[in-house]
Amino acid sequence: MSKKEPESLAPVLRCPAGRVDVRDFDPDAIPGYPKRKDKDDGQDLREELEPLMDDLQERLFAAGTRDAQAPKVLLVLQGLDTAGKGGTIRHVIGMMDPQGVHIHSFKRPTEEERAHDFLWRVERQLPRSGQVGIFDRSHYEDVLVQRVDQLAPATEIERRYGAINDFEAGLVTSGTVIVKCFLNISRGEQKKRLAERLSNPEKFYKYNPGDVSVASKWDAYMDAYSIALSRCNTDAAPWHVVPANRKWYRNWAITHLIIEAMGSLKLGWPEADFDVKAERKRVEALASR
Amino acid sequence: MSKKEPESLAPVLRCPAGRVDVRDFDPDAIPGYPKRKDKDDGQDLREELEPLMDDLQERLFAAGTRDAQAPKVLLVLQGLDTAGKGGTIRHVIGMMDPQGVHIHSFKRPTEEERAHDFLWRVERQLPRSGQVGIFDRSHYEDVLVQRVDQLAPATEIERRYGAINDFEAGLVTSGTVIVKCFLNISRGEQKKRLAERLSNPEKFYKYNPGDVSVASKWDAYMDAYSIALSRCNTDAAPWHVVPANRKWYRNWAITHLIIEAMGSLKLGWPEADFDVKAERKRVEALASR
Repeated sequence: MSKKEPESLAPVLRCPAGRVDVRDFDPDAIPGYPKRKDKDDGQDLREELEPLMDDLQERLFAAGTRDAQAPKVLLVLQGLDTAGKGGTIRHVIGMMDPQGVHIHSFKRPTEEERAHDFLWRVERQLPRSGQVGIFDRSHYEDVLVQRVDQLAPATEIERRYGAINDFEAGLVTSGTVIVKCFLNISRGEQKKRLAERLSNPEKFYKYNPGDVSVASKWDAYMDAYSIALSRCNTDAAPWHVVPANRKWYRNWAITHLIIEAMGSLKLGWPEADFDVKAERKRVEALASR
Repeated sequence: MSKKEPESLAPVLRCPAGRVDVRDFDPDAIPGYPKRKDKDDGQDLREELEPLMDDLQERLFAAGTRDAQAPKVLLVLQGLDTAGKGGTIRHVIGMMDPQGVHIHSFKRPTEEERAHDFLWRVERQLPRSGQVGIFDRSHYEDVLVQRVDQLAPATEIERRYGAINDFEAGLVTSGTVIVKCFLNISRGEQKKRLAERLSNPEKFYKYNPGDVSVASKWDAYMDAYSIALSRCNTDAAPWHVVPANRKWYRNWAITHLIIEAMGSLKLGWPEADFDVKAERKRVEALASR
């Protein structure tokens, strides 16, 4: 029996309100998925969404060319090492017109960045009008790794949850649709993916010995994610928990979420800010050789 | 009779040394194209190149993750309005992994940019190690529109050709492969494409009345391009003249040029900078649930 593609996946994946423990979410689940559990189906279904994604992205991009106040979309990708942030960018964002995309990968803060408030480097990478911004990690690292490794005083970490909520509310008010995704993989899947990187010399570059040190702090990270998802799950900028053990589901689901975000803007095409008939005459009058 | 795909298209499209007049190049030509003149063939042939492009780009990206001195590729796209700079980015750069791509579109300089030397804003947008940078317009605008519209004194314009050659030579020395493409369309094709933008309300956003003013200075632009291509066609950073009346040819040809640029680096995969066996053991020792 064939299930129906959901009109909106966002409510299905939305992190429940209140206190959550991310260990309660199933990384193998495929909520909202309309077909049988099949990798090829997943890719086909995602590719079927491409024309819709193209159309919506072009409307957004078009709005940005004419209006400095045009909306923007910001996709925040968070997850442990190997959760699939890079793969999502490659496969999902790779479907988009690169002209309208701004990707930033947040690494360990530089000395200059550490000399500023934690949101300083984030502000500088926000998408501009008409753009889709992608954060590969984000300001949430400042309440995740920084909490786990005690890289900032407890009072400062504590302050940041509220600061993040205020910051995101401001972005929404100024026309940004924020799509926050926690890519949820299991401990076993992470172990498998780390081992894969070590089994193929072409993938050695993706491996860092530090990843194992991080992986060994699994529970501390689950706790830190649980707190972040509990405290920064606002109506303005809700969290989505994306089961990510199955890459084809993850890619399909995030494609859906971006399409829904762009679709929520209900953008038409910008009106001509010139006299169309007069311009046609001017073009007609041009020499053609 | 089926022709053979060229091993290297760069020499075929390379702008001849010495003084050239861009009006001498045929915008309808399809040099090096191995099949019959057919749009579908063009797309198929380009898509056949995707696995090779993927492999080369991942090697470049991988090198960048391990070595701050890793090479980079810079694609410079120049051409008149409607020549297909945006379409090239959408279709050719759209084939690449967006994580390794940095696109910048150079607009009319801002007041801050005008307060600096013309290369200041360009330096800030150069690709980093392992990246493919794309300039949608570039420092060449400073000897094109600025020359045609006399936006800078003649002596300053004159100075810039040498400054560009020095700048590009420095980039090459520090590990950048530069691929400069002049997208060559005919006057008739430009007129047709401008008219098309005015015939479809979904494309109005691509039209600016200023485009007609620029188009009406066709000969002045041809002169300015001829001078730029004659004077800045160095062995370190040669110009390519890409016939661009046929979009499928343009996309195929530029895909080829980027592949050749990345291939010229002959990159292997980065060696592990860790003890692979020891790391395998560490991963094996991780808990899996």
